[in-house]
Formats: sequence, structure tokens, C-alpha cells
Amino acid sequence: MNTPQQITEMFERHLSLVAMPNEPEKLYAPIRYALAEGGKRMRPVLTMLAYNMFADDVQSVLPAATAVEIFHNFTLLHDDIMDNAAVRRGRPSVYAKWGSNVAILSGDVMLIEAYRHLQSVQSCYLPTVFERFNSMAEQVCEGQQYDMDFETQPKVAVAEYMNMIELKTAALLVGAVTIGAILAGASEEDVQKLHKFATEVGLAFQLQDDLLDSYGDERLGKKIGGDILEGKKTYLMIISLSHATEEQREVLRTTHLRTDITDEEKIATVKALYDTLDAPAQTEQQIAVRISRALSILDTLSIPQQRTEHMRAYVESLVGRKK
Amino acid sequence: MNTPQQITEMFERHLSLVAMPNEPEKLYAPIRYALAEGGKRMRPVLTMLAYNMFADDVQSVLPAATAVEIFHNFTLLHDDIMDNAAVRRGRPSVYAKWGSNVAILSGDVMLIEAYRHLQSVQSCYLPTVFERFNSMAEQVCEGQQYDMDFETQPKVAVAEYMNMIELKTAALLVGAVTIGAILAGASEEDVQKLHKFATEVGLAFQLQDDLLDSYGDERLGKKIGGDILEGKKTYLMIISLSHATEEQREVLRTTHLRTDITDEEKIATVKALYDTLDAPAQTEQQIAVRISRALSILDTLSIPQQRTEHMRAYVESLVGRKK
Repeated sequence: MNTPQQITEMFERHLSLVAMPNEPEKLYAPIRYALAEGGKRMRPVLTMLAYNMFADDVQSVLPAATAVEIFHNFTLLHDDIMDNAAVRRGRPSVYAKWGSNVAILSGDVMLIEAYRHLQSVQSCYLPTVFERFNSMAEQVCEGQQYDMDFETQPKVAVAEYMNMIELKTAALLVGAVTIGAILAGASEEDVQKLHKFATEVGLAFQLQDDLLDSYGDERLGKKIGGDILEGKKTYLMIISLSHATEEQREVLRTTHLRTDITDEEKIATVKALYDTLDAPAQTEQQIAVRISRALSILDTLSIPQQRTEHMRAYVESLVGRKK
Repeated sequence: MNTPQQITEMFERHLSLVAMPNEPEKLYAPIRYALAEGGKRMRPVLTMLAYNMFADDVQSVLPAATAVEIFHNFTLLHDDIMDNAAVRRGRPSVYAKWGSNVAILSGDVMLIEAYRHLQSVQSCYLPTVFERFNSMAEQVCEGQQYDMDFETQPKVAVAEYMNMIELKTAALLVGAVTIGAILAGASEEDVQKLHKFATEVGLAFQLQDDLLDSYGDERLGKKIGGDILEGKKTYLMIISLSHATEEQREVLRTTHLRTDITDEEKIATVKALYDTLDAPAQTEQQIAVRISRALSILDTLSIPQQRTEHMRAYVESLVGRKK
């Protein structure tokens, strides 16, 4: 069995060897660019860790893991156009660097490339994996649409928000994990359990992401408060709104629109209210509950507990829980 | 065996019953809108006619034909954003009606929906059909990129143009026809022949499209001269440029940019030069040659000639050749 780090390195090596046509240059150069600086490769690593819980020849799941990673990067390419986002992973986004037409078409080809990598899946598993991949892809798009709808929707219930991130974020992790397990020959029951496991991990991961945007460590190089300045309906905002007074609600809703105070003051104002309303602690609790649930699901799988250890450690590292 | 008209009606009936989720509404309403007014359904009809040459239960190829049609409509949704096109089939384009963000994301889901319909393909054929579909999809995107590249490229050779339309237009017809034949159990040799057949039909169809844009019948409701006013590098333009004098070339290249004459005068000026340089006749000849080649390939298939009759008639009707 391989550690998360070994698996990450194995995946990076594989991805760096993935061939892409040279021509037309404007179509494929942005894809190479987008895939080259890829963050932590969480999704393909989850595919490989899930596979490795049930089978040893983890190399053989690399094409499916690649499909998952390329799909994820396709969503980023198109999301950046829709969100008008100029920066991605500290570099200009494809959209900012090449313009929206290139980002649209290169994104389309990335989605098709993702499917091309699925072609290598053993034919006995192809129908099942293909179906899972399609559901995953569809749900991610539905989540993105709800997220955009929320921007102009006056009130978003906590349950609506959780449904949105289950589609937009967790569905991709569910796809990544279950496809890995299916290809390793896991039983239907174990795959079902891993579906729940990955949903909990995905929700926790998104809540963590929301939390870090307002309360993260600036030393890690990420600017703090972006969501607040955009007036984004994050988990912090939505639970704060859900039990704020009418007066506090007004402040939460309008601070980002004010022109009489600086950005720092806007961030401080909203964070002070979040603190008063206990939003960060509630978010942390939600994350902890979901991660505990996820980890306890791993205990119920039909495999020796030691085979789940790397997955366990990886999930804990994702939400900043060190053993 | 079914006539092209019976097949078209069968397909329309099937497509009208294709279920699409209701929510999120902004994601799926544009897809329903785009699929509702679908033109002549040439591509799925070709899939079904190809199938019907080799097998009788043409109903069973409907899911694959649907995948092809949804894929085609996905390309139109995204092309309209890239081309800034406000009108499609006489109605506002999705892009014009809902904006580019909706058109991007609904387009993405359409591409995924196309793959969902492929899921229904018999599992023994799935690997082959999946691979064909992916190649087709990739080539169409490559063609679209070359087409956009040509806009800013000072000189486009006839061979470059033919390569572009082979990717952008013919590849989709090749995919449609070969997938139909494969699913009907056609031999590899027949599939290879049909690949060539569909390439010729696709090239002829695109040249015909170029010709009609400048020399079509206004009574059919389509405005004449759009390509000329946009300064588009069509086949007419490219072969005219290839044997024009330096002075004529200048006129061909700059007329659409002039501000001192009306649109009608611009169209008349360029068409007069096309006529002088014999471009329409040469285009017609190219179309005739390619259609003859295509039809003679049908004669070489390993099936009784009478089974090819409907396909033959349909192809002739596509380029306005009535028996």
C-alpha cells in the first residue's frame, strides 16, 4: 500500500507524461498551462487511495484518476469565465491570459479529454464507471448553477446551501472515490458506504474552505476576506443570517456594498458580527461532525482496518487535523 | 427499411420524449429551448439511415442518434457565444436570450447529456462507440479553433481550409454515420468505407453552405451575403484569393471594411469579383465531385444496393440534387 505522498507523486509523474496534441496551439496550450500547476491533486489522489484500499496495483487506476483531475480543471476553466476571475493558483487564469473564447473552447476540449482517459477503463467496468462519471459531471454543473442563482436570491436557507455544495463540491469527491473503489472490484455495499463517506468529506472540505477564506492564515499566501468583499453567500454568512437580528442582518447584507469604509474595515465589520453570532465555532463543529462521521464509515467497510489508514490520514490532513 | 422522412419523424418523436430535469431551471430551460427547434436533424437521421442499411430494428439506435444531435446542439450553443451570434434558426440564440454565463454552463451540461445518452449503447459496442464519439467531439473543437484562427490569419491556403472544414463539419457526419453502422454490426471494412463516404458528404455540405450564404435563395427566408459582410474566409473567398490579381485581392480583403458604400453594394462588389474569378462554378463542381465520390462508395459496400437507396436519396436531397 502507498502513502498519500507516494500516490501524489505517482500521479504527478503520470500526468506530466500525458500527451496532448500540439495543434491547434491556441486550443491545447491553455490545457497544458491549466494542468501544469495543479494544486494538491486531491481528487485523483482520492481515486487512487480508494482503489488502493481494495487492490494493490494502483498504477492501473491512473487513467481514471486522470479523467477525474482533467474534469476538475475543466470546471475551473469555465467557472473562472463565469466568475470573472483573473487569478487561479497565484497565476493569471486561462480566461485572463487568453480571453473567454479560448477558455470556452479549451474547456470544452478538456471535458472531452477527460472522457478520452475514461476510454482506458477495463471494458467490464466501463458501463458502470461511465454512468458514475456522467452523474458526477452533471451534478457539479447543477451545483455551479445554484451557486450563481444564490447571488441574486435574497434568502438562502442552510439546507439549500448544503444541497448546493453537495452538488458543486461533494459530488466530484463522490465520483472520484467511488470510481476508484469500483475499479478495484469493491462490493456494491462498500461502494455505497464510500459514497456517504465522500459526501461527508466533501461537505466538510467546502465548509473548511469557507472558513479559511475569512479566518485563514495570511502567511499561507492567500488573501483573507475575499468572500466578504464579494458579499458571497458562504456557510458563515448563511448561518449568521439565519439567527441574526433584523439590524444585524442589514449589516451582513450591505457592508460589502459600502463606499465610505476601506476593505479592511468591511472585513473587520462582518467578521465581528460572525464572531458575535458564533458562526466560526459552529462551522468548525460542523466540519468536525462530518469528518467523524466520514471516518467512522471507513470502519464499517468489509476490509481490514489497516487498509483504510492512508485514506484516514489523508482526509484528516485535508481539514487540518494532524494525528 | 424506412424512408428519410419516416426516420426524421421517428427521431423527432423520440427527442420530444427525452426527459430533462426541471431544476435548476436556468440550467435546463435553455437546453429544452435549443433542442425544440432543431432544423432538419441531419446528423441523427444519418446515424439512423446508416444503421438501417445494415439492420432493421432502427429504434434501437435512437439513443446514439440522440447523443449525436445533442452534441451538435451543444457546439451551436458555445459557437454562438464565440461568434457573438444573436440569432439561431430564426429565434434569439441561447446566448442572446439568457447571456453568456448561462450559455456556457447549459452547453457544458448538454455535452454531458450527450454522453448520458451514449450510456444506453449495448455494452459490447460501448468501448468502440465511446472512442469514436470522443474523436469526433475533439475534432469538431479543433475545427472551430482553426476557423477562429483564420479570422486573423492573413493568408489561408485552400488545403488549410479543407482541413478545417473536414474537422469542423465533416467529422461530426463521420461520427454520426460510423456510429450508426457500428451499432448495426457492420464490418470494419464497411465502416472504413462509410468514414470516407461521410467525409465527402460533409465537405460537400459545407461548400454548399458557403455557396448558399452568397448565392442562396432569399425566398427561403435566409439573408444573403452575411459571410461577405463579416469578411469571412469561406471557400468562395479562399479560391478567389488564390487566383486573383493583387488589385482584385485588395478588393476582396477590404470591401467588407468600407464605410462609404451600403451593405448591398459591398455584397454586389464581392460577388461580381467571385463571378469574374469563376468561384461559384468551381464550388459547384467541387460539390458535384465529392457527392459523386460519396455515392460511388455506397456501391462498394457489402450489402445489396437497394439497402443503400434511402441513404443515397437523402444525401442527394442535402445538396439540392433531386432525382
